[in-house]
Amino acid sequence: MTSYTVLCGGLGGSRFVDALARAAGPGAVTAVGNVGDDLEVLGLHVSPDLDTVLYTLAGLLDEERGWGVRDETYGALRMAEALGAETWFTLGDRDIGLQLARARLLRDGRPLGETFVALAGALGVGVRLLPASDDPVRTVLETDVGELDFQTWFVRRRHSDTVRGVSYRGAESSRPGPGVVEAIERAEVVFLAPSNPFVSIGPILAVPGIREALVARGAGVVAVSPLVGGRALRGPLVAMLKSLGHEPTVVGVARFYQGLVDTVVLDPADEPLAPEIEALGLRTIVTPVVMVSPDVRGEVGRAVLESL
Amino acid sequence: MTSYTVLCGGLGGSRFVDALARAAGPGAVTAVGNVGDDLEVLGLHVSPDLDTVLYTLAGLLDEERGWGVRDETYGALRMAEALGAETWFTLGDRDIGLQLARARLLRDGRPLGETFVALAGALGVGVRLLPASDDPVRTVLETDVGELDFQTWFVRRRHSDTVRGVSYRGAESSRPGPGVVEAIERAEVVFLAPSNPFVSIGPILAVPGIREALVARGAGVVAVSPLVGGRALRGPLVAMLKSLGHEPTVVGVARFYQGLVDTVVLDPADEPLAPEIEALGLRTIVTPVVMVSPDVRGEVGRAVLESL
Repeated sequence: MTSYTVLCGGLGGSRFVDALARAAGPGAVTAVGNVGDDLEVLGLHVSPDLDTVLYTLAGLLDEERGWGVRDETYGALRMAEALGAETWFTLGDRDIGLQLARARLLRDGRPLGETFVALAGALGVGVRLLPASDDPVRTVLETDVGELDFQTWFVRRRHSDTVRGVSYRGAESSRPGPGVVEAIERAEVVFLAPSNPFVSIGPILAVPGIREALVARGAGVVAVSPLVGGRALRGPLVAMLKSLGHEPTVVGVARFYQGLVDTVVLDPADEPLAPEIEALGLRTIVTPVVMVSPDVRGEVGRAVLESL
Repeated sequence: MTSYTVLCGGLGGSRFVDALARAAGPGAVTAVGNVGDDLEVLGLHVSPDLDTVLYTLAGLLDEERGWGVRDETYGALRMAEALGAETWFTLGDRDIGLQLARARLLRDGRPLGETFVALAGALGVGVRLLPASDDPVRTVLETDVGELDFQTWFVRRRHSDTVRGVSYRGAESSRPGPGVVEAIERAEVVFLAPSNPFVSIGPILAVPGIREALVARGAGVVAVSPLVGGRALRGPLVAMLKSLGHEPTVVGVARFYQGLVDTVVLDPADEPLAPEIEALGLRTIVTPVVMVSPDVRGEVGRAVLESL
């Protein structure tokens, strides 16, 4: 069976994984997710990026907001707050229920990847969800106020600090999660999802063995542009491209991925930039990549697959 | 300052502690709470009896239901249930918020008693709440289906199994919580709250040193009847008195406490039984002990204190 593997972050990545699952069937898709954003909230291990993928595929995501579970309540967080807990990272009650179920598995000594097998299975999600690593890899942003872990920078300080550098703490001693390298080696096509290259895809590539597995493929590695008409649909990517010295367009993203991908999918809004990307020796595919609404995702996924 | 110490279980105990706090001021009252019902729910340590006291005093108890927090939602439990967790013990979202705050303290190595200091302080509760022990003491019921821990018997199997015996696992090696013995020694009066003698007061008395401290007082130990007109306001006390071979009235309770208390407070509904209790060498005080409604508790508490 044709199979696709997607390296992905949170919201943009989850939408693209959903698009592929709708187009090719969930059983054809493996998502290798970023764990650089993982953190502990109220003593519970939370994997915001992969949880967003899980919630999206289970039909549980609050699609309006782009994070968390829909129809949420916040009783637990409000009570914990009244009792002095730090609550700048919002976890709704249903979300806490999932984190408590995961905590039980982790306490039993199950690695992070196995918790996704169990949780996805219980939620009827057919896409394989693999953390890039079961080991702790943490994205750290270098800013004018010092080093900030990802969620402190992104959520707590609302990504208001200019990013001067990005590193991945723990990456050098981490190992790819079980199945990750094989999923990259064996897939018909590996996609880099329309996620932030520095804080979503970067921490995945920083796990020794993953970048190497991509490069070893030689072909069939496709980046989907996270920018449309020079803008990120959400998040601080344009500002990061600029402050890190990259061109703040899909051309800058293509250059960042040069040597790793052979094809770039870009939105019709960016078609004028296609020649610049082709000049880098990369193939371009122009097809809509906006898939905010779940209703259009199947079509977006089919168009991408048909154009390969 | 006059001070009162109450040995207590959950609902009945919490109401009496509240009554005393309203009558004498919260700063005059220490509650020594049963931990024999404690259990782990969703990986969180829950102290149902002392939590009920805490919630009652904080004005958070669902008074209708007699347990848990009012205005609750159940998002976390329902989600955890969908993911395969055992959910026969109901924890609402606000309750889970408190348990998560406690879990953080326990993880930091704080003993159970200190978590009550912190939580009561944050909730503005002025009554001192002391677990009988920081060590695990677990009430075990001997039944026709074998030994059952308290919550399995009480909640999961709805106390439908006849109790043939009661024991307190871990009690022999447990120590009284910090401050417990002193609170018993120094109080003007020590009350045994209108709680179940076998599964609420019994596990407290089973902690080595607590019964001894009570006996050493010699006087000023007052049992408040958990039965009114031969019935428990809630719970399986009458059936337990019968199956354990005791008279199923306040006389049976008084006999059970003989040697430990010098006074029994009984409701006017049980006044005809006063001579039988006095024949045991115990003083009786007849005054209303029904205090289901928070509005009457101050009056009940004042009447008890004035009659001493």
